[in-house]
Amino acid sequence: MLDRKKFDELLAQLRALDCKDMYQNDFFLTWEKSDDELRAVWTVADLLRTLREGNVSAKVFDSGLGISLFRDNSTRTRFSFASACNLLGLEVQDLDEGKSQVAHGETVRETANMISFMADVIGIRDDMYIGKGNTYMHAVADAVQEGYQDGILEQRPTLVNLQCDIDHPTQCMADMAHIIHTFGGIENLKGKKVAMTWAYSPSYGKPLSVPQGVIGLFTRLGMDVVLAHPEGYEVMGEVEEVARANAEKSGGSFTKTHSMAEAFRDADIVYPKSWAPYAAMEKRTNLYGEGDFEGIQALERELLAQNAQHKDWTCSEELMATTKDGKALYLHCLPADITGVSCEAGEVDASVFDRYRDPLYKEASYKPYVIAAMILLAKFQDPAAVLEQLANRDQKRQMEV
Amino acid sequence: MLDRKKFDELLAQLRALDCKDMYQNDFFLTWEKSDDELRAVWTVADLLRTLREGNVSAKVFDSGLGISLFRDNSTRTRFSFASACNLLGLEVQDLDEGKSQVAHGETVRETANMISFMADVIGIRDDMYIGKGNTYMHAVADAVQEGYQDGILEQRPTLVNLQCDIDHPTQCMADMAHIIHTFGGIENLKGKKVAMTWAYSPSYGKPLSVPQGVIGLFTRLGMDVVLAHPEGYEVMGEVEEVARANAEKSGGSFTKTHSMAEAFRDADIVYPKSWAPYAAMEKRTNLYGEGDFEGIQALERELLAQNAQHKDWTCSEELMATTKDGKALYLHCLPADITGVSCEAGEVDASVFDRYRDPLYKEASYKPYVIAAMILLAKFQDPAAVLEQLANRDQKRQMEV
Amino acid sequence: MLDRKKFDELLAQLRALDCKDMYQNDFFLTWEKSDDELRAVWTVADLLRTLREGNVSAKVFDSGLGISLFRDNSTRTRFSFASACNLLGLEVQDLDEGKSQVAHGETVRETANMISFMADVIGIRDDMYIGKGNTYMHAVADAVQEGYQDGILEQRPTLVNLQCDIDHPTQCMADMAHIIHTFGGIENLKGKKVAMTWAYSPSYGKPLSVPQGVIGLFTRLGMDVVLAHPEGYEVMGEVEEVARANAEKSGGSFTKTHSMAEAFRDADIVYPKSWAPYAAMEKRTNLYGEGDFEGIQALERELLAQNAQHKDWTCSEELMATTKDGKALYLHCLPADITGVSCEAGEVDASVFDRYRDPLYKEASYKPYVIAAMILLAKFQDPAAVLEQLANRDQKRQMEV
Repeated sequence: MLDRKKFDELLAQLRALDCKDMYQNDFFLTWEKSDDELRAVWTVADLLRTLREGNVSAKVFDSGLGISLFRDNSTRTRFSFASACNLLGLEVQDLDEGKSQVAHGETVRETANMISFMADVIGIRDDMYIGKGNTYMHAVADAVQEGYQDGILEQRPTLVNLQCDIDHPTQCMADMAHIIHTFGGIENLKGKKVAMTWAYSPSYGKPLSVPQGVIGLFTRLGMDVVLAHPEGYEVMGEVEEVARANAEKSGGSFTKTHSMAEAFRDADIVYPKSWAPYAAMEKRTNLYGEGDFEGIQALERELLAQNAQHKDWTCSEELMATTKDGKALYLHCLPADITGVSCEAGEVDASVFDRYRDPLYKEASYKPYVIAAMILLAKFQDPAAVLEQLANRDQKRQMEV
Repeated sequence: MLDRKKFDELLAQLRALDCKDMYQNDFFLTWEKSDDELRAVWTVADLLRTLREGNVSAKVFDSGLGISLFRDNSTRTRFSFASACNLLGLEVQDLDEGKSQVAHGETVRETANMISFMADVIGIRDDMYIGKGNTYMHAVADAVQEGYQDGILEQRPTLVNLQCDIDHPTQCMADMAHIIHTFGGIENLKGKKVAMTWAYSPSYGKPLSVPQGVIGLFTRLGMDVVLAHPEGYEVMGEVEEVARANAEKSGGSFTKTHSMAEAFRDADIVYPKSWAPYAAMEKRTNLYGEGDFEGIQALERELLAQNAQHKDWTCSEELMATTKDGKALYLHCLPADITGVSCEAGEVDASVFDRYRDPLYKEASYKPYVIAAMILLAKFQDPAAVLEQLANRDQKRQMEV
Repeated sequence: MLDRKKFDELLAQLRALDCKDMYQNDFFLTWEKSDDELRAVWTVADLLRTLREGNVSAKVFDSGLGISLFRDNSTRTRFSFASACNLLGLEVQDLDEGKSQVAHGETVRETANMISFMADVIGIRDDMYIGKGNTYMHAVADAVQEGYQDGILEQRPTLVNLQCDIDHPTQCMADMAHIIHTFGGIENLKGKKVAMTWAYSPSYGKPLSVPQGVIGLFTRLGMDVVLAHPEGYEVMGEVEEVARANAEKSGGSFTKTHSMAEAFRDADIVYPKSWAPYAAMEKRTNLYGEGDFEGIQALERELLAQNAQHKDWTCSEELMATTKDGKALYLHCLPADITGVSCEAGEVDASVFDRYRDPLYKEASYKPYVIAAMILLAKFQDPAAVLEQLANRDQKRQMEV
C-alpha cells in the first residue's frame, strides 16, 4: 500500500522547486542544471520509488517508444534505462548500429528524426572518445528539436545522457541519491569530506566520466571534495574549473592531491576507481580517427605499464581504517576490480567490497528512478500534478486480490 | 485534443470503401489490392495519425506480439514497424536468425507456427535475392493460415511485406500518402507527371523494390508515370506489365525513356534513385546460390564500372529547374547518396536535398501509420467501428492533468 | 467469449491443489515439485489458455520486466518465454552477454541484482555444459533471494529454468500437457507405455535435458516408461535414480533397454530423439574448461563416428506399425532431424513426421502457457483468486466492437 504521508511530503517538496525549464528539455551535464532542478530529479525519483514500493503504477504513457543507443557495452545502465521506460509505460527499442543503416552514410540529423516519429525519449551512451560523445548527443537533440519545430515529429523526444566523454549524470545522480539517503538529507552533507580517488586496475582505458561527473556534482552540495590521482592521471581541465566554481558557490571546497592516503584521511565518503589519463584518452581518440591501430596498441602497452607503477593505489582495509571513524561510505559505479576476486590486484580489497556490498547495490538501485525522473520532468509541464494523479488513480502495478 | 470534425470526415470516407477482403488477409503487393483497399490504408493511416495528434490512444490490443524478421539491415522500416506495433498495443519481438535455430534445418512452415502462438502480425524484410523474398513471405503466410485453420494458432497473424524483391509496399504507400497530402487529395493527382528515374550512386546492388513499387502503384491514380534509366538498368518485366495495365485502367500513362532530362521535363514529382539492373541482381542471386564468391566479386566490379559511366544521372539543380515551375516534389525513400555530403558524387545535389529535407522527413513519417493501418485492416472486420470506439473511449496516450 | 463453465471447472480443480509453496519460489526441476504443484501448473496453463481463447486479457502486471538469458540458440523457447511474459503484462528484456559487461569480470551475484531492480521473472537457458547450467541458475536465484531479503530488490523475481544440463521442465511440462489433453485427462495415463528412445542424427552434442526431463517427469504419472538407447549413450545416473523412485511411488515402471524395437512394441507414446552420451558431454565440458579445442574437435569426430554406427535407430514407419494399434502418439521437442528433409538420414521418417505435424505443433503450443503458469504461481499467493478476478474483469485482449 502506498505510504501516502511520505508521498505527500515529497510532493510538497517538489512543489517548492522551480523546474519549469526542464520541460521539453534534455539532460546532458549536471552542471548545466540549477540546484532546484537537481533536487527535483532526486525528489521525483523518491516519489516514483514510493509509488512502486506501494504497488502503484507510474505509467504515464499508454504507448510510445524509448530509444536506446549504446555505443559501448553496458549492463546496469542498459537495464536501468529499460526499467525506467517500462515504469513510465514506454517500450524500449534499441538502435543497434550494426543492424541499422547508420554506417551506410546516414547523417545524425536524419537518423535522429527517422527513429523518433513515436519516440518520447532517447537515451545515449557514447563515452569512448574524447570530444565526441557529448557532441553527438547535442547533434541528436538539436535534430529532434528542429524536427519537432518543423512539424515532422508530433512529440519532442527528450534526450538522456547515459554516459558521455564528459559526464555520467545518471550514475552520479544515483550515487548522490544514495548519499542523501545514507546521510539523512541534503542538509546534512555540508562539510562532509569526499575522496574521489584513482585506483589501480589491470585493465586499460576506463572512461573519465565518473570522476568528472562526481567532482562536477558533489561540489554543488557544500562538501569538501578531494580529487586524488597519481601524477599523469589528470581529468579534463574544464571540469576541474566547474568543480572549483561550484565549491566556491556552495561553501564547500575542491582540492587536488597526489596522495590517496591524504584523500582518505577522515573522509566521510570514498570513491576509489580507475580511469585513464585524459591526455591518453585524447591521444587514443586521435589514433582511432587516423585508423592507426599499431599506435593504439603501443599506447595501450604504455598505459598498462604506467598503471602498473601504481598498484599501491588500492582501497585497502588499512586505508579505510583512516577514514572518519573507519567507516566512510564506500562508493563505486560497478563493476569494481576486486583484488583476489575479479583480478590479482585491483581497485579494492575483497573484504572492504564485501562489507559494502548491500550499500553498493542500493546505490545502483537508484539509477532506474533517476532516469525515470529525468524523463518525467522533461515530458510534463506540471510533474507534481501528474504524480498526485498517479497516487489518486491508484492503479496497481501487480494485481491485488 | 482530438480534431473530431476531421476524424469524423475521414471515418465517413472509410465507411464508403469496400475493404472487407482485407480482414484476416495479408499485404504483399499493392497491385494485388483493389483501389478501395489502398484508399482504406491511407484513410486509416490518417485516422490513426489524427488520434495520435489528439493524444488519443490507438491501443486496440491489450497484449500480443508483433514479430519482425529483417534479412537485411534497416533503420527506418524497423522503427516504423516497431512504432506501428506499439501504437496498436503489440510488443515487438525480433526473430534474429543468428540467435535462432532457423539455420539448423528448421523448415519455414515450422518456424512460422512456432513464433506465432501469440503473434498478431509478422513483418518481413527480405529483398536481397530475386525470386526469393516474396516467395518466402508467401510460405510464411500459408503456414500460419494452415496453422490457424488446423487449430494450432488461436489467432491468424497477418503478414506485412516490409520490402521484398518485387515491391516495397509500406514505402510506396507512405510515399503516396505524402503526395496525396501535398497535392490536397487523390482527386488532384490525375494527369500529374511523375519521373521515377535511376540515379548514380557509388554503391552497388540497391534493391529494385522501390522503382518497381512506385511504377506499380503510382500508375493506379491516373498519373503520367515515366520510368527513366540508362540502358541496361531494366526493372522486372512483369512489373512493367502491371504498370502498363494500371495506366490504361486509370486513364494515366506509363512510358519509358533512357533520358533523365526527358523524364524531369515539366514533372510534378521526381523520384531519382539508384538501383541495380534486374538481370544483374538475378545473376547475383544465382551466384550466391552456387556459393561462387569470386563470381560475386567480379560481378560487383563490373556493376560499379557500369555505374561509373552514368555519373551524369544525378538530380542536379539544373535538372530540377526544368521541372514544373522548377518546383517538382522531390521524393526519396532515404538514405540518399548526396553529392559532397555522403559521397563525392551521388544521386542528388546537396542544395536540392537540403531544400526538400522537411518534406522528405514528412514523407518518411507516414510509414508507421501506413503499417499500423495495414495491421488494423487485417485484424478487424469492422475497422470503422473500431476507430470510432477509440475516439469515443478517449484514452490518453500521455497522461493529462 | 469466455467459456465460463470450463473455466470454473478448472478453477475448482486448482482450488483443490496445494501449491502454496510455489509462491515466491523458483522452478528448476520437475522432481523438486510435488504432484499437486505440477498439476497446478497444468491447470493454470489451461485456465490461461481458456482466457485467451475467450479474448480475455490475462495481464496481471501493469508494468515490470521479464529478463531472458539464453546461453544457447533458441527459437521456440525464446518466443514461448516472450509470449508468456507479454500475456501477463511483462516486457521482455534480453540479457545479451555479448553486449553486457558480464564478461568483464562481473560476478553472478552482482549481475543478478543489477538486472532485477524491476524484474518479476528471470528465464535462463544454460544447457551446454554438464554440472554448470543448473548450478548457475541456483546462483542467480540465491542472489536475488538475498537481494530481496536485504531490501535491495523491491520484488523477488522468480527464476524459470528454460533448459539446463539436467532438466528441460518447460518442454517436458508442455509435452505432458499435450499428452493429458490427447488422452483425456491425467487419470487415463496409468499403465500407458512410453518409449523415450535415442534416435540417430547427423549432428553432434544434443543436450540430455529432454530425455532426462521426460523420464524424471513421466514416471510420476503411473506410466510404464522405457528408456532405450544404444550402449554408450547413458544419461545422467542420478536422474535414472529419480525415475526409478518415481515409478515405484506412482505405481508405474521405469525400465531400460538397448533395443529400439522393444521400446516401441505396443507403446502408447514414443519420443525418439537424439542426444549425446552423458560421459562425452562431461568430457567436453572439461575440455572447454581447459580450452583444449583440439581435444574438442577430436571428441566431436569420435562422437559422430559413434553416432554413424546407429543409423538404424530411426522412427520408421515399420517401427511405428509395431506400436499400440500402430498409432502411438509421436512426440518431439522440435526441430527434428527428418530423413530426406532436413538431412539424409535422421531421427524420423518424413511420412511419420508429416502425419503428426499438427499434434507436434499443438504440443509446442502449450509451452507459453506452461511458462506463464509457472510465473503466475510464483508471483501470487492466491492464484485461483487472481484468475477468477481476471475472468470477472473481462478486459478484452483484442478490442471488440
